[in-house]
Amino acid sequence: MTTTAPGATGATGAEAERLDAEDTLAPLRERFLLPEGVVYLDGNSLGPLPAAVPPVLTDVVHRQWGTDLIRSWNTHDWWEAPLRVGDAVGRLLGAAPGQTVAGDSTSVQLFTALSAAAALRPGRPLLVTDPGHFPTDRYLAQAVAGREGLEVRHVSPRDLEGFLAAEGHRVAAVSYSPVDYRTGELYDMAALTAAAHRAGALALWDLCHAAGAFPLRVDDLGVDLAVGCGYKFLSGGPGAPAFLYVARRHHEGLRTPLTGWTGHADPFGTAPEYTPAPGIARARVGTPPILSLLALEAALTAFDGVDLAGVRAKSLSLTGFFLRCAGELLTPLGFEAVTPSDPARRGSQVSLRHPHAYGLVQALADRGVIADMRAPDLVRFGVNALYTTHRDLLTAAVRLRDITRTAAYDPAPPPSGRVV
Amino acid sequence: MTTTAPGATGATGAEAERLDAEDTLAPLRERFLLPEGVVYLDGNSLGPLPAAVPPVLTDVVHRQWGTDLIRSWNTHDWWEAPLRVGDAVGRLLGAAPGQTVAGDSTSVQLFTALSAAAALRPGRPLLVTDPGHFPTDRYLAQAVAGREGLEVRHVSPRDLEGFLAAEGHRVAAVSYSPVDYRTGELYDMAALTAAAHRAGALALWDLCHAAGAFPLRVDDLGVDLAVGCGYKFLSGGPGAPAFLYVARRHHEGLRTPLTGWTGHADPFGTAPEYTPAPGIARARVGTPPILSLLALEAALTAFDGVDLAGVRAKSLSLTGFFLRCAGELLTPLGFEAVTPSDPARRGSQVSLRHPHAYGLVQALADRGVIADMRAPDLVRFGVNALYTTHRDLLTAAVRLRDITRTAAYDPAPPPSGRVV
Repeated sequence: MTTTAPGATGATGAEAERLDAEDTLAPLRERFLLPEGVVYLDGNSLGPLPAAVPPVLTDVVHRQWGTDLIRSWNTHDWWEAPLRVGDAVGRLLGAAPGQTVAGDSTSVQLFTALSAAAALRPGRPLLVTDPGHFPTDRYLAQAVAGREGLEVRHVSPRDLEGFLAAEGHRVAAVSYSPVDYRTGELYDMAALTAAAHRAGALALWDLCHAAGAFPLRVDDLGVDLAVGCGYKFLSGGPGAPAFLYVARRHHEGLRTPLTGWTGHADPFGTAPEYTPAPGIARARVGTPPILSLLALEAALTAFDGVDLAGVRAKSLSLTGFFLRCAGELLTPLGFEAVTPSDPARRGSQVSLRHPHAYGLVQALADRGVIADMRAPDLVRFGVNALYTTHRDLLTAAVRLRDITRTAAYDPAPPPSGRVV
Repeated sequence: MTTTAPGATGATGAEAERLDAEDTLAPLRERFLLPEGVVYLDGNSLGPLPAAVPPVLTDVVHRQWGTDLIRSWNTHDWWEAPLRVGDAVGRLLGAAPGQTVAGDSTSVQLFTALSAAAALRPGRPLLVTDPGHFPTDRYLAQAVAGREGLEVRHVSPRDLEGFLAAEGHRVAAVSYSPVDYRTGELYDMAALTAAAHRAGALALWDLCHAAGAFPLRVDDLGVDLAVGCGYKFLSGGPGAPAFLYVARRHHEGLRTPLTGWTGHADPFGTAPEYTPAPGIARARVGTPPILSLLALEAALTAFDGVDLAGVRAKSLSLTGFFLRCAGELLTPLGFEAVTPSDPARRGSQVSLRHPHAYGLVQALADRGVIADMRAPDLVRFGVNALYTTHRDLLTAAVRLRDITRTAAYDPAPPPSGRVV
């Protein structure tokens, strides 16, 4: 019995085995250097190391930086890397080339996107965001609103239509994520984008929990602006550069707040005034962190030849299977699945509510299953169809069941200051 | 004659030999992996690869990211890296711990510093900067002034006293670099900082061309804010994270424009409102690019046990020697040294004016001497006393003489779009 997790029920174990055997994406797992004996279900916080990254970094460090030195800005085209990597990300977003730039952090890109959105819709005093949005999205909406003389309105995606019916003419932009980072609920990007547009507002999407996880169609949906990070489903490494997408129709009017020299029309001309470069290049800011940026570029090759529709199908198979495991093994022990069972409303993660989430996640890690917790009471399991197996998920469910059943965990809350 | 450059005059060659033989810092060169046969005089654009970096990056990639995965935020203390690396930079600035943060690009840090300076001096409508300041400093001064309702005044450091006598009461901040990036002229940071303070203005310094090149005393001088990059004299790698110093007395009142989640007092608490962290941590923005940041941290160990006063003395010996070489070998061929011969007014570079600067720099590179050019007509030689030798400089001068004398270069101007 080496192919099923220890202690699994026969039927569930057989199902995992069958689903993994039928998985046509299974060979993609070899594109990642996953540590042996570890079930990694936190790729939605930090993707694992893609096999393509170490050789590229060695080359970047020794040959490009160490040997070719400053000339690498030309000879290895470091200079164009933010646009080249931006386009590589753009392919996963459904964005035609020339609309996406890679660099900085999601927070910096959000600042740019929110500021630009406000400037593109002058005279509209409201900025709408999700009260459950990731904190940095909310904090930056507040900061940009304060600077631009706007007001933030917190409106759940569920209530957007109603809100816009009354206030839509006053809304400059709607800033949402398609996936609730806590519950994994998936919102209807097409419908919400269309609703924003009917009100004459811009649609700004934070794709941190979406890019690389399932197909996106930013061009087709008419998304105006989007941002996201490089280190979750894109597996670009810790703190990998973020990205900013701006639809081509807005480039001409795009005014960015961070007018760094690399976004200048003539970056080496030392002109006295800032003249923005044509196109998305004007969203460049300062000198990009080349080591991190080229690691992200290498990581993105894990998607070469991969159909994101297939990734989505497998992801739903994985999360659906895990929800069934949870229903069988964990619900009887007091866990509550907060991730929708309806596949159309599910991102690429499953979150289970339990009052001792923190201690359970620690105990799971001690037993080789890496998940994470989101305060105060969610155990969060991210799946990435490029490497996660059904068996991984069964192992996680069985170990969590065993830990809970034997109370083999510390029920204390997380210590303050710890990164959780 | 293996120890003198080919074609050097006997006297100058002997001087280079003697100065290098007497150089007590010579062993530090082994802390860098310089390619054989290359004279690298562009460390003020991109520092070379420190020997400490590759093994650290290998560990960060394989063990920390690849094996320990998400847990490394705690177990390898990635979380504190921006503050830890900030303090390591701070030691080179004369900053006590807890006042410097590493991250983002110089342009982003400038935006934060300029915005914060404006907020710390409300009611003062002028922002003073150098008309010869590096472009990004000027562009961001303009951008921040526009957003904050200030006016930018371009005042050369030479004219600051006179300007402040008339307008000082209206000045919020003076934003300067201690080194002119084109000419290498060194300004008097102490006198300029004191002048700003007498007027009640803040002193904001861009230390890109100073940090690691000579001793700085930001705490002693009462500097208010400072920024700088990690990739020039700090040799942190291409696009290495920048730094921001804010004097402790301003922390309580420090309001940053980029209110990203990592600068929150309780970054994992998901509070609805942004509450800045105590101290310099509030200047953190988003998730930092860990690969680039830890490469910078490793690079900074090249300064371990190094007295910056000794670095300064050797740097002056190097630049003084090169000016003598230039006077002997290059002035007769039409080069004009624009770097002050007075050591007190000289940074850590020498710039020579020649109408064919671009072609000469390309021809030098083809002959193994890497310098750079700054438009329209400066050939710029950066020296870094941690690895540059007098012999390197003699080689550069001799090769430049030979190239010029034989007209072995292309006199065309730089092609547009090329990184120069």
